[in-house]
Amino acid sequence: EILAAIQGHFAGGVLPLASGASNRPLTGRKVLITAGPTHEPIDPVRYIANRSSGKQGYALAQAAVALGAETILVSGPVNLPIPPGAQMMPIETAAEMLKLVEAELPVDIAIFAAAVADWRVATAADQKIKKGTNGLPELKLAENPDILKTVATAKSKRPKLVVGFAAETQNVIDNAKAKLAKKGCDLIVANDVSADSGVMGGNRNRVHLVSADGVESWPELDKSEVARRLMEDFARRIGALT
Amino acid sequence: EILAAIQGHFAGGVLPLASGASNRPLTGRKVLITAGPTHEPIDPVRYIANRSSGKQGYALAQAAVALGAETILVSGPVNLPIPPGAQMMPIETAAEMLKLVEAELPVDIAIFAAAVADWRVATAADQKIKKGTNGLPELKLAENPDILKTVATAKSKRPKLVVGFAAETQNVIDNAKAKLAKKGCDLIVANDVSADSGVMGGNRNRVHLVSADGVESWPELDKSEVARRLMEDFARRIGALT
Repeated sequence: EILAAIQGHFAGGVLPLASGASNRPLTGRKVLITAGPTHEPIDPVRYIANRSSGKQGYALAQAAVALGAETILVSGPVNLPIPPGAQMMPIETAAEMLKLVEAELPVDIAIFAAAVADWRVATAADQKIKKGTNGLPELKLAENPDILKTVATAKSKRPKLVVGFAAETQNVIDNAKAKLAKKGCDLIVANDVSADSGVMGGNRNRVHLVSADGVESWPELDKSEVARRLMEDFARRIGALT
Repeated sequence: EILAAIQGHFAGGVLPLASGASNRPLTGRKVLITAGPTHEPIDPVRYIANRSSGKQGYALAQAAVALGAETILVSGPVNLPIPPGAQMMPIETAAEMLKLVEAELPVDIAIFAAAVADWRVATAADQKIKKGTNGLPELKLAENPDILKTVATAKSKRPKLVVGFAAETQNVIDNAKAKLAKKGCDLIVANDVSADSGVMGGNRNRVHLVSADGVESWPELDKSEVARRLMEDFARRIGALT
């Protein structure tokens, strides 16, 4: 059934692309990708972070370059080499990420693969918070900007295709459908990041594409292969590849 | 004045050690070093972390091996190569670190260079906390075990020398003196980690040795050189080097 879905995906005479330079359907197109975690400071030495290796976003940037796109990679702190040909712009917090993303618009395809912290600490301390005699510090949280929703619902400069990612530990498909509706994006790439899935930090991934057209579930593949196939899918969705 | 302190440090005919295998004063001694940050989970995808590259602790492990010690390196998540000859034991949380440290006792020298989180989230969630419609989640904190104090005040198996580190952003010496008294350790190695010091994540460090004997301030040096000199100092303090 999964195989059938994949075969359907490549039906209509469209074959997986060779990597030759002769076939670069995204030439002249601009692709923006966010990747990695954000770090939200508590004080000068502490922060709240998300677990994210950045591997999927970096693999997407490599695939975008391979298809000929001008590729902007807005990345949180990770330990990965910058894909040759991509322009990497480092950020630490969600607020910094939103600012850089908005400065890069308009783009043809915007892919939000970063694990952005939903909250930050309302007022990060200027000095290191000391172990007090007066009990524990209270961490007052504030909601971070919703970067995906902000770009997907923008009145001007909305990208042709806005793709979100949903890392879930349960009810993967249902949560992705809810996210699609709530964010106003065109597509959600959903995956299961529960501990036994091995996806967080690992090299393989099993994704589900959730759009208004329905759900397409892919088999488990290397993250680089997932990225290649996703980028071709995105190119098709904007009419750059038929 | 600083130079004088350093010259005093090497006075009495003691010269900096050559790295030759003929001069390994810690042969037959066991040295335990903690290094890196701890990560305290909020839920399966989020955590609270400390900024710590682990460089100083790893450099100390390398220096301990060079002086002939059996070297145990209990390390939080970092991106550093394991020093050849050291036994690296990976941990994530402060609770895991304490458990491994206690299992390694007795040791001759225990050096607590890790940036251990003072608190953890009281009850880490089993599932990813969703962005709710009912406002922000409340992060209830609980105090982590004080690993340095636990080992320094142990009734049995207390190491001959217990060394703490104090990363401060202000009042470096005063805070270190207070820490020495409170923890019951023999020595505090204090440094300034304020943003403009460049110490956090950098390759150089300027340390102050605070003990019952007073304060000794060293000039800014490479972290590897700081580590070499510190380990020789520690060897002297346990009588393994005169």
